[in-house]
Amino acid sequence: SVTLFGVVDASISGYSSTARDERATVFPNAFGIPVYLNQGSVKTSRRELANSGYNSSRIGFRGTEDLGGGLAASFWLEAPISNDNGQEGIATFARRSTVSLSGGFGEIRLGRDYTPTFWNDTVFDPFGTNGVGTNLISTANGQFGAFGTPAASTAPFTNVGSSNYVRASNTIGYFLPPNLGGFYGQFQYGFAEKTKYSSGIFTPDVANSQRQGRYIGGRFGYANGPLDVALAYGSSTVGDQYYAGTTTKVNTLNLGASYDFGPVKLFGELSKAKNKIDYEVTPFLGGRPDIDLTGYLLGVTVPVGAGLIRASWSHVKYDTNQPYNPFVVNNADPKANKIALGYVHNLSKRTALYATIARVSNKNGASLTVGGPAFYNNAAGVFTPKSSTGYDFGIRHAF
Amino acid sequence: SVTLFGVVDASISGYSSTARDERATVFPNAFGIPVYLNQGSVKTSRRELANSGYNSSRIGFRGTEDLGGGLAASFWLEAPISNDNGQEGIATFARRSTVSLSGGFGEIRLGRDYTPTFWNDTVFDPFGTNGVGTNLISTANGQFGAFGTPAASTAPFTNVGSSNYVRASNTIGYFLPPNLGGFYGQFQYGFAEKTKYSSGIFTPDVANSQRQGRYIGGRFGYANGPLDVALAYGSSTVGDQYYAGTTTKVNTLNLGASYDFGPVKLFGELSKAKNKIDYEVTPFLGGRPDIDLTGYLLGVTVPVGAGLIRASWSHVKYDTNQPYNPFVVNNADPKANKIALGYVHNLSKRTALYATIARVSNKNGASLTVGGPAFYNNAAGVFTPKSSTGYDFGIRHAF
Amino acid sequence: SVTLFGVVDASISGYSSTARDERATVFPNAFGIPVYLNQGSVKTSRRELANSGYNSSRIGFRGTEDLGGGLAASFWLEAPISNDNGQEGIATFARRSTVSLSGGFGEIRLGRDYTPTFWNDTVFDPFGTNGVGTNLISTANGQFGAFGTPAASTAPFTNVGSSNYVRASNTIGYFLPPNLGGFYGQFQYGFAEKTKYSSGIFTPDVANSQRQGRYIGGRFGYANGPLDVALAYGSSTVGDQYYAGTTTKVNTLNLGASYDFGPVKLFGELSKAKNKIDYEVTPFLGGRPDIDLTGYLLGVTVPVGAGLIRASWSHVKYDTNQPYNPFVVNNADPKANKIALGYVHNLSKRTALYATIARVSNKNGASLTVGGPAFYNNAAGVFTPKSSTGYDFGIRHAF
Repeated sequence: SVTLFGVVDASISGYSSTARDERATVFPNAFGIPVYLNQGSVKTSRRELANSGYNSSRIGFRGTEDLGGGLAASFWLEAPISNDNGQEGIATFARRSTVSLSGGFGEIRLGRDYTPTFWNDTVFDPFGTNGVGTNLISTANGQFGAFGTPAASTAPFTNVGSSNYVRASNTIGYFLPPNLGGFYGQFQYGFAEKTKYSSGIFTPDVANSQRQGRYIGGRFGYANGPLDVALAYGSSTVGDQYYAGTTTKVNTLNLGASYDFGPVKLFGELSKAKNKIDYEVTPFLGGRPDIDLTGYLLGVTVPVGAGLIRASWSHVKYDTNQPYNPFVVNNADPKANKIALGYVHNLSKRTALYATIARVSNKNGASLTVGGPAFYNNAAGVFTPKSSTGYDFGIRHAF
Repeated sequence: SVTLFGVVDASISGYSSTARDERATVFPNAFGIPVYLNQGSVKTSRRELANSGYNSSRIGFRGTEDLGGGLAASFWLEAPISNDNGQEGIATFARRSTVSLSGGFGEIRLGRDYTPTFWNDTVFDPFGTNGVGTNLISTANGQFGAFGTPAASTAPFTNVGSSNYVRASNTIGYFLPPNLGGFYGQFQYGFAEKTKYSSGIFTPDVANSQRQGRYIGGRFGYANGPLDVALAYGSSTVGDQYYAGTTTKVNTLNLGASYDFGPVKLFGELSKAKNKIDYEVTPFLGGRPDIDLTGYLLGVTVPVGAGLIRASWSHVKYDTNQPYNPFVVNNADPKANKIALGYVHNLSKRTALYATIARVSNKNGASLTVGGPAFYNNAAGVFTPKSSTGYDFGIRHAF
Repeated sequence: SVTLFGVVDASISGYSSTARDERATVFPNAFGIPVYLNQGSVKTSRRELANSGYNSSRIGFRGTEDLGGGLAASFWLEAPISNDNGQEGIATFARRSTVSLSGGFGEIRLGRDYTPTFWNDTVFDPFGTNGVGTNLISTANGQFGAFGTPAASTAPFTNVGSSNYVRASNTIGYFLPPNLGGFYGQFQYGFAEKTKYSSGIFTPDVANSQRQGRYIGGRFGYANGPLDVALAYGSSTVGDQYYAGTTTKVNTLNLGASYDFGPVKLFGELSKAKNKIDYEVTPFLGGRPDIDLTGYLLGVTVPVGAGLIRASWSHVKYDTNQPYNPFVVNNADPKANKIALGYVHNLSKRTALYATIARVSNKNGASLTVGGPAFYNNAAGVFTPKSSTGYDFGIRHAF
């Protein structure tokens, strides 16, 4: 009654990211003498045996029990594994760990699970948010929704407390039943699990002790024949300060769709995320403005025999909503573009070879990479991130 | 030849614990002016998606090989898992990890296993020492038998070295064969695994380096028809200091019984634990007196159709054996009562819904909770723990 | 399509290691008065419930998929476990974690795997490098090839980054196909996975950040009938310093053979390892001389009914290649001998009882043990390691 399943995905991958000193090449020093200033560009690169270039490496246990009367109980425990170096085994069930009760009413699911908002980012990405081809909406939102400081680090094992972008812990989920003529939907609530003090004056003066970690979101879609379209909204509390009366949230709204024409399948997504601070008492000068993150994704897949060509273009733009300041140079909104191209060759349903190449172009200080090492910078911070390129060449074996 | 088994148990649980400032409400200050002093009561509370409210969440591997001639070899590897947040997967086999050889002589079992003394605390508890209903004997003894400082912390993964109350590592166990007309019994010895120095004068002056971790205990019982009764004794070395010549032990004696009348089943347990320091050279003033922990448990279960009503009352009392001191107020022995009430509804043999409520009342400084956050106190330590209440409402699915 | 397999091996083991103060017993002090100086010998000993005395305790998942046309894909995920205390479950797949594609051309294997050079150390050891009987070539080379400081410690879980002696992470392996008339062979390359900086002047001044971790090696052998013989060579980069221009490598060459005469099987191995520093600019005085580690192993096994007698003698010698210095006493090369004797009694193919005893004799400062606590020394460092003895008495159960 238990199914043991998994994916072992390994690739030879390379990453290369270039940052450039954008100051003048020569500049007069204190005595008016022009001196060499600009330090040129610095490329950081790394070659690896990596995992999860096509599908995330994992091992899991799942099962379903028929309780009669249309009712069923089921469980799903799935661990991320790092098969390239063997360091992470089944140390956690960070990918998913749930127990469910399902029936005509739908499904109630308890535990750690994907957030509704993440589904659109991955389902409508030809690269499924894996490897160097991962779309920029996912890359940018992953950092955008990270908690300031996770409660407890467990490196090198996956830490479930660092973000609610992809998944949330301690959640109650509800899923609509499957027989709604193509309509589907889900709702998820995740507990912050913080200790409350009553009366509140006994609350310790510690950041992120009261509301951080809470998640609430939902997704509603329609899939029928070649069409799949879904809208999702979620609100993740990423920080709080009890005495300052502030709550920092990342609110995300996204809409994705795919249409399978047969010889080609098209993908698209729009995403809008807002990192905002709620003030119990609005500061005199209005508080920190919201930071907006807007993203676009266009993708295509083309089946060719036993293979599949994959390509995508994605774009993100940050808006810090700062008023125009004529004394600051280069305060334009950071933005980035990405193109990715890949080919998957299926040796069987379970085993495939794949190759992907990708390139990110950053502007105005955006610092997104395809993976691998971060952009170089020195203590003076004079380097500006520019392009990042990478490749994966690997094998995916599922069992 | 391998059986894969497990439990995924998730609940919505809430905990609330109240501490009270027991000083006078107003009190004269240095100038004789009455000032407000008492700070009232503080309630710490938390709501969670929790695991193991009815049965401990786990995943395990076990098997038996018939060696012929009545002989068999078997193994059992069982991991605790935290399915509510996915943080702990099969990182450890802290619940049990043993290899056995069994035959007509009984069973010899090597590895990490339950201590004989814990069995009575859990077998004769209607709530099986899980969730907010866990009896106070178990709650109090769990803290009583903890080591001062475990050797190495592996948070957030279960640390096997923090206590020998529930289980002990590095043990040799012996179990009587099953065919003794209802009589059963076991014996367990656990190695301290400390490095000895010969001659002893080269021993480093470090606490808990010589004897801490050793466990020795046994259990003997009789189960026949509706009756089950068992007596257990164990001695756990929880601390030592080579040069001071001291060894701190927790010695536990308990007696439990249950009788199944059919429409109702009754449970009872008496437990006596003593935290004592053995001195190689008795100090002039006699050394620290023993600390006694006495516990009582009464329980009942009532089957109702596919369901089971569970209820228990438990009581513990600490005795620090201090001589009567007329100048110290409120030096009465700390004690606590608990009542727990629950209902389990079996959807099948493997899947059940359950609900439990419980309340602990502390007196004279005892600080036991039903789970969740600790009692509030400030640096001045003026708050006294009072009541703690909680509930579990969840689902248990076994596979 | 998944095979779940494992070994649970537990033993009662004891270790005892003696170090001796080799200074004069009495010695004149500053006033010419003879004072007592020599502190005699110190024995450190420990008794444990240990794991892996005969075969390494483990649990693993593996499987193969037939892709047609002689092609196959397979995976192997194998975790070390500490069944004596339950502390390490399937936290890592540090024993092996690979995905393979195989066919008429042989096998390409990606991930973490045994190094070619280690195979000869374990295959031609009657004790298979497990328990107190482990041959000295393996004991000495294990420390010889350790990295200075592993990147990240994950105690008490196995850390894959501490050495490339037994296994290497992030490797690409190639194996000859099996149908070559008894000839077999393999090649392995392991990525260092360090971040490169271009231009190089931006490289941070941190040791072991550029090349440490790289492994390259191969093994070629012939097995036919009673004979098995193999030669292996490997080079492991154990340290580097970018600005000093140094790369520290351990280069290993070994040759092993076994011949099965039927009533007795003989084993032998020669091993030569060199810890050398490559200098980009050779220092004026020639740099640190290489350190050589030479080892010999002779072994024998004798089947007796359901049992197997095992015995081995091994010897290692370190040569620091220091020029002769008449002013330094006792600068002879450190060396050590070991004899081990054991018996395995098979209760079935899967279950065995075993007993092993062993003794190491160190000379000239070598400090190898059979396991257990290290040799005693004090801050002044006046103790010299001498003999180390130990025993295992246990049970191995495979599933």
